[in-house]
Amino acid sequence: MNIPRVVIVGGGFAGIECAKAFKNQPVEVLIVDRQNHHLFQPLLYQVASAGLAAPEIAHPIRSIFFNQDNVEVLMDEITGIDLEKRRLATPEREIAYDYLVLALGVKTGYFGKNEWERHARGLKSLDDATAIRREVLHAFEKAEACADPVERERLMTAVVIGGGPTGVELAGAFAELARHVLLRDFKNINTDEAKIHLIEAQDRLLTMYDPALSDYTRRTLEGMGVTVHLGCPVSDLREGEVVLKDGTIRAANLVWAAGIEAPAITRTLGVETDRAGRPIVETDLSLPGRPEVFVVGDLASCVDQAGKRVPGLCPAAMQMGRHAAKVILDEVKGRKGKGYDVRRQFRYFDKGSMATIGRSHAVAESMGMKFDGFVAWLMWLFIHLLFLVGFRNRAAVLMQWFYAYVRYRRGARIITGLERPPA
Amino acid sequence: MNIPRVVIVGGGFAGIECAKAFKNQPVEVLIVDRQNHHLFQPLLYQVASAGLAAPEIAHPIRSIFFNQDNVEVLMDEITGIDLEKRRLATPEREIAYDYLVLALGVKTGYFGKNEWERHARGLKSLDDATAIRREVLHAFEKAEACADPVERERLMTAVVIGGGPTGVELAGAFAELARHVLLRDFKNINTDEAKIHLIEAQDRLLTMYDPALSDYTRRTLEGMGVTVHLGCPVSDLREGEVVLKDGTIRAANLVWAAGIEAPAITRTLGVETDRAGRPIVETDLSLPGRPEVFVVGDLASCVDQAGKRVPGLCPAAMQMGRHAAKVILDEVKGRKGKGYDVRRQFRYFDKGSMATIGRSHAVAESMGMKFDGFVAWLMWLFIHLLFLVGFRNRAAVLMQWFYAYVRYRRGARIITGLERPPA
Repeated sequence: MNIPRVVIVGGGFAGIECAKAFKNQPVEVLIVDRQNHHLFQPLLYQVASAGLAAPEIAHPIRSIFFNQDNVEVLMDEITGIDLEKRRLATPEREIAYDYLVLALGVKTGYFGKNEWERHARGLKSLDDATAIRREVLHAFEKAEACADPVERERLMTAVVIGGGPTGVELAGAFAELARHVLLRDFKNINTDEAKIHLIEAQDRLLTMYDPALSDYTRRTLEGMGVTVHLGCPVSDLREGEVVLKDGTIRAANLVWAAGIEAPAITRTLGVETDRAGRPIVETDLSLPGRPEVFVVGDLASCVDQAGKRVPGLCPAAMQMGRHAAKVILDEVKGRKGKGYDVRRQFRYFDKGSMATIGRSHAVAESMGMKFDGFVAWLMWLFIHLLFLVGFRNRAAVLMQWFYAYVRYRRGARIITGLERPPA
Repeated sequence: MNIPRVVIVGGGFAGIECAKAFKNQPVEVLIVDRQNHHLFQPLLYQVASAGLAAPEIAHPIRSIFFNQDNVEVLMDEITGIDLEKRRLATPEREIAYDYLVLALGVKTGYFGKNEWERHARGLKSLDDATAIRREVLHAFEKAEACADPVERERLMTAVVIGGGPTGVELAGAFAELARHVLLRDFKNINTDEAKIHLIEAQDRLLTMYDPALSDYTRRTLEGMGVTVHLGCPVSDLREGEVVLKDGTIRAANLVWAAGIEAPAITRTLGVETDRAGRPIVETDLSLPGRPEVFVVGDLASCVDQAGKRVPGLCPAAMQMGRHAAKVILDEVKGRKGKGYDVRRQFRYFDKGSMATIGRSHAVAESMGMKFDGFVAWLMWLFIHLLFLVGFRNRAAVLMQWFYAYVRYRRGARIITGLERPPA
């Protein structure tokens, strides 16, 4: 019999864990990703706020699998999925599969207002993060040289839309950048006067957490000088302006962290999706009617065996990736009999979740317990270091954080990519 | 009396040293640079070859001067110089000066063949370096997926044009990247078969060094698998092709490190220049007929007091920056009498120069002594760490180098900036 070929699309947490689970197993694995690196998304906001350099939170996908012989890695973009013929298309080739694992993740979504994308950047890739870093630092440079107080205020205002973990972490990091890190660099402006707004449509931040932690988060951010707007959906976005029900905020920097959307290619699957366009999967994570196709990670709209909606978090993505691999291996190895009469069902094991709110503050929930403050922050630090791929990245990030903590400095506050043609 | 205003254009080694020399002196200093960071150019080739991350060799200019009260920093681009009215123009403002120090550095020059710029990128900025890194790593990714052996060979070929220090260091770093760092990442291609060509028009590499060191450099590079072409001027450059007198090399990556050229704005000065367009300065580093205007660093075409041509090296730039500051201060403080009847003349103190040729190999010349091999490499390491600005950068770079040395890995081998609009 031929060795079955598993194609995994996407080298994020779900895709990587799925591929790892096939180590020493009788399948051939191909990982296709349009980037060459696995990205540690939970720390993306630190690149955007000049705390870390881009290479410190990324690791080449192929080097993760250098000692796993049955894994190949292809840097390419999937442009077509033919479920009937079991074939994928990229601009230059066709890829046949026996099993397909779709782990593409999600992109920034604007609730159908796609014209807003021009005015408020999302934060999903390293390029997004370095662009945000460039724009925020550049705005302070322009403010330093600006004589008009109204324009200066606009340049020193940043708005983060969306009060989930990304929005909370980014708003906190911006506040620290302005009030501590940049404070002594500038001489004409007082960066302490920078205005950071965090806008949330619902009536509290971090809605997936206990209300007490939401409240702690709001108070901590306000203590750091962030203006938190709750129950405030965005009515309109224009260039450098965000319109709320109670007024308009003019800001040089707008970041959108309020919504997600499935990549367009998933629409071609012809399956039922949720509002964000994410395929609704069976409890074994396969596509309805396509037992050889799995959707895992943030891209899957999934209710698990216990009837619980699976959240878009790293641990969930990793568990889903491993689950899909197990289901495929059960079938490949022809496991039969008691316990194998139906496919194994996915059950999300909720280890908890956490978000950091600047230096020394964080919130965490785990196994019914709530943590906040310094203890939660240490937990956050430890767990994030632990899951960073690659020893080098762990050591580098630890050093940067230590340095940032004791000296209140950030090493990556350089502006790149602004280059114009040489004069 | 008003406090004299010194405007320094350019935050490289010459500009930074000049501004530092004004510490606690009765002048106001403004540094104007189109980037927000001082760049440690001697290590740019390590960013291009995925050894270091961009922020590790750059430091925000304003943070260098946070405790020097008489220095302001402006991120802006000079678009006009009016020597009569003693005024500079940028797109949005005018800047008056009493003294002007031009320390703009040089850009990549193509000997008048400006159409070659499209086909072979120079290496002068962080954006150049990350673009070269992206293109080289991407070529290996494409080779891994390529079935056509001719095309695969082209993808795995890189050409460096110019056998000076930058060309030598870059060719050596590319060879190590292919033969050691990437070797175990790829499964379909043998990166050991990558071809690196180093092309030099003259009959030896590093022509400013002793011929014995040139020869050592050539032998070391050849031992690392670099094909060295000597006495081989480039006849033509086309997309992915370089034409030499003895044939054409097809290569996915071409880097131009063969020439320099003054930025266009210096042409508007109306002074005599050398062939590269660099103003020819007096021995006090001022512009002929303009005692209040100085040109320092790589941009100056200068023969010093001893009749020695000053090379385009960091130590020379730093010395020139300090010299211009001293001349200005002599005048500002009204120093008179013996020793001050004429302006002080610049005398270049040649501490020596060095170039590295990959792991454990380097060449150095200092005070009439020659060094090669491991000793020279340790000297190179020590001196480069010493002059990196910022403790954080020194610690980070030391860690990366230690890691690269013991593990033969490079941390920054990620491809960024390739992002297409989301599918």
